[in-house]
Amino acid sequence: MIKVAPSILSADFANMSLDVKTVEEAGADMLHIDVMDGHFVPNITIGAPVVKSLRKVTDLVFDVHLMIDNPEQYIKDFALAGVQIITVHAEASKHLHRLLQMIRNEGVKTGLALNPATPISVLEHLLDDLDMVLIMSVNPGFGGQKFIPAIYDKISLTRKYLSEKNRHIPIQVDGGIGLDNIKKVCDCGAEIIVSGSAIFNSDSIKETIWLMKKADEVE
Amino acid sequence: MIKVAPSILSADFANMSLDVKTVEEAGADMLHIDVMDGHFVPNITIGAPVVKSLRKVTDLVFDVHLMIDNPEQYIKDFALAGVQIITVHAEASKHLHRLLQMIRNEGVKTGLALNPATPISVLEHLLDDLDMVLIMSVNPGFGGQKFIPAIYDKISLTRKYLSEKNRHIPIQVDGGIGLDNIKKVCDCGAEIIVSGSAIFNSDSIKETIWLMKKADEVE
Amino acid sequence: MIKVAPSILSADFANMSLDVKTVEEAGADMLHIDVMDGHFVPNITIGAPVVKSLRKVTDLVFDVHLMIDNPEQYIKDFALAGVQIITVHAEASKHLHRLLQMIRNEGVKTGLALNPATPISVLEHLLDDLDMVLIMSVNPGFGGQKFIPAIYDKISLTRKYLSEKNRHIPIQVDGGIGLDNIKKVCDCGAEIIVSGSAIFNSDSIKETIWLMKKADEVE
Amino acid sequence: MIKVAPSILSADFANMSLDVKTVEEAGADMLHIDVMDGHFVPNITIGAPVVKSLRKVTDLVFDVHLMIDNPEQYIKDFALAGVQIITVHAEASKHLHRLLQMIRNEGVKTGLALNPATPISVLEHLLDDLDMVLIMSVNPGFGGQKFIPAIYDKISLTRKYLSEKNRHIPIQVDGGIGLDNIKKVCDCGAEIIVSGSAIFNSDSIKETIWLMKKADEVE
Amino acid sequence: MIKVAPSILSADFANMSLDVKTVEEAGADMLHIDVMDGHFVPNITIGAPVVKSLRKVTDLVFDVHLMIDNPEQYIKDFALAGVQIITVHAEASKHLHRLLQMIRNEGVKTGLALNPATPISVLEHLLDDLDMVLIMSVNPGFGGQKFIPAIYDKISLTRKYLSEKNRHIPIQVDGGIGLDNIKKVCDCGAEIIVSGSAIFNSDSIKETIWLMKKADEVE
Amino acid sequence: MIKVAPSILSADFANMSLDVKTVEEAGADMLHIDVMDGHFVPNITIGAPVVKSLRKVTDLVFDVHLMIDNPEQYIKDFALAGVQIITVHAEASKHLHRLLQMIRNEGVKTGLALNPATPISVLEHLLDDLDMVLIMSVNPGFGGQKFIPAIYDKISLTRKYLSEKNRHIPIQVDGGIGLDNIKKVCDCGAEIIVSGSAIFNSDSIKETIWLMKKADEVE
Repeated sequence: MIKVAPSILSADFANMSLDVKTVEEAGADMLHIDVMDGHFVPNITIGAPVVKSLRKVTDLVFDVHLMIDNPEQYIKDFALAGVQIITVHAEASKHLHRLLQMIRNEGVKTGLALNPATPISVLEHLLDDLDMVLIMSVNPGFGGQKFIPAIYDKISLTRKYLSEKNRHIPIQVDGGIGLDNIKKVCDCGAEIIVSGSAIFNSDSIKETIWLMKKADEVE
Repeated sequence: MIKVAPSILSADFANMSLDVKTVEEAGADMLHIDVMDGHFVPNITIGAPVVKSLRKVTDLVFDVHLMIDNPEQYIKDFALAGVQIITVHAEASKHLHRLLQMIRNEGVKTGLALNPATPISVLEHLLDDLDMVLIMSVNPGFGGQKFIPAIYDKISLTRKYLSEKNRHIPIQVDGGIGLDNIKKVCDCGAEIIVSGSAIFNSDSIKETIWLMKKADEVE
Repeated sequence: MIKVAPSILSADFANMSLDVKTVEEAGADMLHIDVMDGHFVPNITIGAPVVKSLRKVTDLVFDVHLMIDNPEQYIKDFALAGVQIITVHAEASKHLHRLLQMIRNEGVKTGLALNPATPISVLEHLLDDLDMVLIMSVNPGFGGQKFIPAIYDKISLTRKYLSEKNRHIPIQVDGGIGLDNIKKVCDCGAEIIVSGSAIFNSDSIKETIWLMKKADEVE
Repeated sequence: MIKVAPSILSADFANMSLDVKTVEEAGADMLHIDVMDGHFVPNITIGAPVVKSLRKVTDLVFDVHLMIDNPEQYIKDFALAGVQIITVHAEASKHLHRLLQMIRNEGVKTGLALNPATPISVLEHLLDDLDMVLIMSVNPGFGGQKFIPAIYDKISLTRKYLSEKNRHIPIQVDGGIGLDNIKKVCDCGAEIIVSGSAIFNSDSIKETIWLMKKADEVE
Repeated sequence: MIKVAPSILSADFANMSLDVKTVEEAGADMLHIDVMDGHFVPNITIGAPVVKSLRKVTDLVFDVHLMIDNPEQYIKDFALAGVQIITVHAEASKHLHRLLQMIRNEGVKTGLALNPATPISVLEHLLDDLDMVLIMSVNPGFGGQKFIPAIYDKISLTRKYLSEKNRHIPIQVDGGIGLDNIKKVCDCGAEIIVSGSAIFNSDSIKETIWLMKKADEVE
Repeated sequence: MIKVAPSILSADFANMSLDVKTVEEAGADMLHIDVMDGHFVPNITIGAPVVKSLRKVTDLVFDVHLMIDNPEQYIKDFALAGVQIITVHAEASKHLHRLLQMIRNEGVKTGLALNPATPISVLEHLLDDLDMVLIMSVNPGFGGQKFIPAIYDKISLTRKYLSEKNRHIPIQVDGGIGLDNIKKVCDCGAEIIVSGSAIFNSDSIKETIWLMKKADEVE
């Protein structure tokens, strides 16, 4: 079954508690929390104080995606806010190994996000330190964008590379994924799907998540 | 009557809609929205997408306080989100006049915020361009801090300076203000009081706002 | 007689040699060269290699206005290009005294430019080191803007301040000045007028410069 | 026939119009416009206002080479100035895919420039988005430098890589190329040659361009 | 008696222990430790690990002068290294009040340094938070420079300002001070004199310090 | 015999002269000088003025490891301080080829350092310009860290890559190396070993260095 991580970027920010509970009950595997600082990406969304408030209303796994510069300065804040996964961008730090170590030292799982243009060679010496790889299928910063076709190959390439290295690191994919292409994305090797507008703008959040999770079973 | 601007920084971010309606009904004069980017200040709070969501649930005046670097890049986003006042920090731009012009060109009122250490001489050539002056009485970045005593004098000095220049620009003060010191702050010359924890952590938000608004009438 | 410095920003960049010769013959007192780097201001114009080419075609005094970040790195380049005045922005360096020293050490005259919002207190400890003060009457970055009315007072204030300190440092004003307001600007205390579009977009460059230079004689 | 792109960096900046017309008549395939901001490279040359002036005097294809930080901020300006190709540096942005998208969205062709040390793996996920690859054969910033010998191999490697991927993306090479080595550069796989001093400092611009274009025919 | 703070910048860095003991025995009132990061000033000197080593060999008061960007990040390191005074530059932070608070929270005394061009109005709202004011009489970055004459007036002005405000905050002066001008500097209002080359390059360190300390007694 | 480069980071900074002479007499092949600026890494150590002082007390080869941003600005200072090798970080510059050229132009040997996560593809087009490759086996910034196991493979990979390219460029490894693992590191292909705490915190500096140098001979 496909793991689905609804992206809070498309939720109703005025009533996050409601949307979060809805996706939790609908069987979401984790909540994808898009943190943007207006510097790494041209948009500011939400930070650790908001995550702390959300932590009180749900038991969902919090999968925090840091689209920020100087992520080193905020690892501790998010760990204290009670998150389970912190994903940092390969392009956001010159000291990626130290950054991943910092996250694990807080008892949090690590993810490494790759922008659409970033070569997967950045993974090469970090395989011991990664709990997840996030392949961006749109340019980070905004919801509602279209899946970049070249990313299908990049997912396959990453899956193949990880297999050759005998690593069972799950691949998460984020951007432009809906019911129409989720199967194809997973066939390429993705295991966790981030989806925002396709879930929150659908007629039934519950049904959409359910259909997404079962998308790989259909023939 | 004192104008009170509850600061969203101390609201429940998981259920902002509720808190916002509560302060609206309680007679709040505007909603003070603390935007932090993790660069100008060491904390990330909320950005334009959140403000846009909040706009749908209330008619309160939105008084956006930008504690961000490169504020030029985000004026348009906040204007489009439907805000009435945008306050920028004097320390955040080398081109303050242009920044204020940008805000007015969007049909939005301007505010200029001064960090505790910033001299009021920064106002000198901007009097034509200001709709509000925000004197910080704590260092921006976090809620729940104590009022810096030296700021009482700074408020008086600002009030005196503006009077000498025959300008009726309201002074807003932000940080560490509660029922115990609101009268003193207003006696120094403040007209609009930002208050976060003193309101949202009180037993009755409604009563606290009411008492704050009338604080200058008591003897 | 008013000193007039035509701003190259409004010249024809494809044929600068022609425009420069025209203003030289028209009696321009110096050529105002607007150097922008796309960082201090949101526009890139021309740099030292262009100035070097221009130096070969005219004997005009070159008055270089650096609207750039890290001006320290380019003082030598412009000095070597054969300029007579280098004006730096007060907002562009934390080490203004050293910057002015660097310029004088190259045998070049110094100018200090103040953005519209910048208080004139920045001049206070630099009076020994200044050959010119440049009061910006528009926000730097583009030609063709309107004169900011609050600047009339700022010029008067600067002139008064310099007189009280017994300093004969000429005041240059840049932005939105044409035949309609040049007299008023000079009555406030300006001695050198930068003008771009009012000169280069006029019917007769020659006549416009002539009228500008004599503007203070008319009654 | 080799495509030749004379680099404006070596033209006479005081009379660009003349030099541009000369290379146009001499059969230049495009005009290579070196935009430097003094931050990405240690030199400031010319920006969009100059390109706009040049646009009025020639019909040449304008091939703009942005050697600037934060190129995102200037794509629109150059598109509006009427250019046909915008080349950005792989080292200048963390969001290369978005940057190339921005260029194409303006109806302009894309180029990606690689500094001498930059691995060609940066091309890997961008093949759908590229209209040209620019291999730097000197370090960007100044004219008149010597071709770095290691770049011959890099060109061959790039050509081989693109062929294997079945992509017909032309390779442009820039730096230290003259009549003595142009054939060798093209034999390695280059199709478009940028040349500055070898053209503008030659006895006959016209003849030099002509000889360059035919250099691959000679035996 | 004048307080003398020998500047380690002119000591023998290969044998600091010896030089430090010499000045301690010679009656130095404190050791002035020049920390430069190559960003705030164009030179890198020494950091906290060196101060920690020095702490083991002397009981002198350590007066650390931070000529660094982002001083917030290093306050704790220097406090832990066992220093008594930390002086930060007014030009190095947008949050000076918070920075001074951070220093006092570590149990360390505060100093605020003003570059030669910086107006003393930066002191205005910080008088409660300052244990010392450092007036730079050269541009920070290097030893052996000449005292800037305009600084005599600046010292007098600062002394007068502090007296009017009834504050007994000592003024320290740093740069180009030797036996020839120390009396004049102190007559203007300085109480603590930093001196590097005049002490360490003298024939007798001991005698020079002694003469400096008594310089105000001579007639 | 293994080449050993004691790292000054673990020496006694108050008496560097003594420690340096001790390692020189003990047969150290060079002195590894860790320059940190508090920006590229979160620590400030020592800069060129300290190196200049050390140069007077020893004839050891000075192998300077620049863990700084904007290394271009300091190459000349270190060259003038009399060093033999300058190693720059691959992550610290967008213009690595120019940086290495700058070092060689000063008559100094070049090194390129790779952070633990940095792929070795950065070496690809720089083989002509490198006199040494430095593989970091800890994250730079502090002494006393543990060797990262994934680096053994990275060293082997680098050695293999250089052999395939027929380059005899020595590999230096830095971080967490002591008598327990030095043989393994060298078996992977390292020729020069940087060691700090394992040397300076040992009972006998002399014996430790001696044992390190002979570590590859033992069976």
